[in-house]
Amino acid sequence: MIEDLIITKTKKIILDKGNIYHGLRKTDNGFSQFGEIYFSFIKKNSIKAWRIHKKMTLNIIVPVGSIQFNFIDLRENSKTFKERFELLLSEEHYYRVTVPPKICFGFKGMGDGINMLTNIANIPHDDNESETKDLKEFNFIE
Amino acid sequence: MIEDLIITKTKKIILDKGNIYHGLRKTDNGFSQFGEIYFSFIKKNSIKAWRIHKKMTLNIIVPVGSIQFNFIDLRENSKTFKERFELLLSEEHYYRVTVPPKICFGFKGMGDGINMLTNIANIPHDDNESETKDLKEFNFIE
Repeated sequence: MIEDLIITKTKKIILDKGNIYHGLRKTDNGFSQFGEIYFSFIKKNSIKAWRIHKKMTLNIIVPVGSIQFNFIDLRENSKTFKERFELLLSEEHYYRVTVPPKICFGFKGMGDGINMLTNIANIPHDDNESETKDLKEFNFIE
Repeated sequence: MIEDLIITKTKKIILDKGNIYHGLRKTDNGFSQFGEIYFSFIKKNSIKAWRIHKKMTLNIIVPVGSIQFNFIDLRENSKTFKERFELLLSEEHYYRVTVPPKICFGFKGMGDGINMLTNIANIPHDDNESETKDLKEFNFIE
């Protein structure tokens, strides 16, 4: 496991007309402030990797489909420096993952249908605060 | 149209591996503060109606599927008191709708697959600040 990466089981309310899935409340563990929310779709077997945010804390949820995540700790002062963590998020495995800055991450679409994550970020998107690394830089583990 | 109901065209970034859809930024028109985000699914031809929030301002987006909304202005001091507004939100018709308090609303699943809305609310869920009316109370217009 990676230090300060928080995994929170998140509630699903099952209803005849269509379910309600909790996302994030301002009183939840892992919430600091609201900057932006966006949706990222990932096709089956496609990989979006690698990205490192210098300032952004992410709160990632997968309400539709199934997505495999890889996290690598690049914080030199961390107890878990260079350690890795893999996590599958899906409707069945419905958790929110809070990702602090300077964790490198990538994700792969696993479901046959739509795979979609929501990121509730503590700051708005800013190209200057993130960097990308080539997919070949690290091994993506399923 | 209903006074203070704001409809904002929202950006989609088309990418080979899977698109990115904008949601809401803290600097966007219609954003006041963050209380909670949740996801509500609605099956085809099912209707969730009617609900009125006394305090909550909603920011609704439909990133997956297609959902028909009905809004009715129940604010006695509004210029558009008792007026109605219908709106279809979908991937093709990708807008965010900001709904002030005391607007009665309902919605119907239109797509054959998954229909899902996201609500970014300015306050966390609280049973005491919302009321429901029976579906029969008003006509639902497609």
